[in-house]
Amino acid sequence: MTRKELIEQIRKKQSFLCVGLDTDINKIPDFLKETEDPVFEFNKRIIDATKDYCVAYKPNLAFYECQGPAGWESLRKTLEYIPDDIFTIADAKRGDIGNTSTYYAKTFFEYLGCDSVTIAPYMGEDSVTPFLEFPGKWAIVLALTSNAGALDFQMISDEKGKRLFEKVLEKTTRWGTPDNTMFVVGATRAEGIGEVRKLVPDHFFLVPGVGAQGGSLEDVTRYGWNEDCGLLVNSSRGIIYASNGADFAEAAGEKAAEIQRIMEKELRSRNF
Amino acid sequence: MTRKELIEQIRKKQSFLCVGLDTDINKIPDFLKETEDPVFEFNKRIIDATKDYCVAYKPNLAFYECQGPAGWESLRKTLEYIPDDIFTIADAKRGDIGNTSTYYAKTFFEYLGCDSVTIAPYMGEDSVTPFLEFPGKWAIVLALTSNAGALDFQMISDEKGKRLFEKVLEKTTRWGTPDNTMFVVGATRAEGIGEVRKLVPDHFFLVPGVGAQGGSLEDVTRYGWNEDCGLLVNSSRGIIYASNGADFAEAAGEKAAEIQRIMEKELRSRNF
Repeated sequence: MTRKELIEQIRKKQSFLCVGLDTDINKIPDFLKETEDPVFEFNKRIIDATKDYCVAYKPNLAFYECQGPAGWESLRKTLEYIPDDIFTIADAKRGDIGNTSTYYAKTFFEYLGCDSVTIAPYMGEDSVTPFLEFPGKWAIVLALTSNAGALDFQMISDEKGKRLFEKVLEKTTRWGTPDNTMFVVGATRAEGIGEVRKLVPDHFFLVPGVGAQGGSLEDVTRYGWNEDCGLLVNSSRGIIYASNGADFAEAAGEKAAEIQRIMEKELRSRNF
Repeated sequence: MTRKELIEQIRKKQSFLCVGLDTDINKIPDFLKETEDPVFEFNKRIIDATKDYCVAYKPNLAFYECQGPAGWESLRKTLEYIPDDIFTIADAKRGDIGNTSTYYAKTFFEYLGCDSVTIAPYMGEDSVTPFLEFPGKWAIVLALTSNAGALDFQMISDEKGKRLFEKVLEKTTRWGTPDNTMFVVGATRAEGIGEVRKLVPDHFFLVPGVGAQGGSLEDVTRYGWNEDCGLLVNSSRGIIYASNGADFAEAAGEKAAEIQRIMEKELRSRNF
């Protein structure tokens, strides 16, 4: 999906919601466990219930890999089931070198048909650029994450006071463009999003940490906004586990709709 | 596998060779492509030919994932086929937070039965520690890698002149112990290995970059040695693609034996 197409979807749906499909086999309702592929069945119903309210889905690979080949099959079927006009993110946080990264890119972009994949930048340029060579596909690079450990390394300052996440932004924006690169910018420190926005005015941000991890949607929008919206805000557990009963999909739909209404208000107030 | 068991194997085989099973479906001999599982058939023959000369095998996940569920099955069968007294490394470079990292750990340690997994430390403590909670299992954390892009971020100095890879070593050695943590330290700058050895005297290092990427085995041993050997030196392409004909396994065995003889000389000269 191109940047233009993504922006059109945000405008059309009045939403910049990404639903995180962190589907934990141990957390899905019991009645689904008797089906042939419980993880896919769960995702299918979540997608049916939420697809009108979101512009992106983000499965986290860890929850699929732990089921072995069956998990990869659930993931493949899930991605196939997602409507074509919804952006897909393989939250895989991969990062290897050269030819090896190309194989990861082929896995996510060609085999699974995802629009994008999340990338850990520790190994530098040759771990990121192989993902930028696929037309219409995106690398979403970890910059400032929302977890406690983010402070361990991402905030380290160099001699000139420039922090690691700033160096990642600076270098990565030279390797890619706002048409094939986004950044993960956590919501637990909304002011942090504002700092990143000043450094990279044009790129889209994938923002985790709204909801379960505690960030406010209004703050994220205020600090992260750019003229193309420039935000995909993710919620995983808050939506997909809104209920653990037979009404789980309905509850997920209601939760997604509730977030969409807040987003619509934010978008309309900016005449988007 | 415990540290004590690993050291015993190094002593017994007079080798600290790790064979990288970066098995690229496009590079394996044609006659194997007619078998049911060409990647596993290739690995099986490589393992038969090299197992007396190495103490570890390291499949890189990218080459298996790109084949979808079939690739995971090839990987699982390969790991099952490796003799129990050989250390196994899932070269996956994973890194996510908390519960998600635990699922990755379960994938590699429980589902695949690997002894260890490589970890990218960008997200900090809660992306590393979940891997340290499995008895007899290891986290192998990227510190100073051997690729060109390693210079982009790993060498950034903080206000006190401490570089990112040093911060990773400093913090990670507080989270884990030399019994459950190793570090990836590239061989392209042998003096770099010496610097790292001074900072972490007791930990094992996984050293890629000998052979195809150009480091010298004697230099790596000189700079990286500790009283328990403390080194696993990896060679991938130099061994598994030593020949692309019908004699590929024999050629791989000869190449592994050749490296083992150099290692034996290094070990004996240190009375190990």
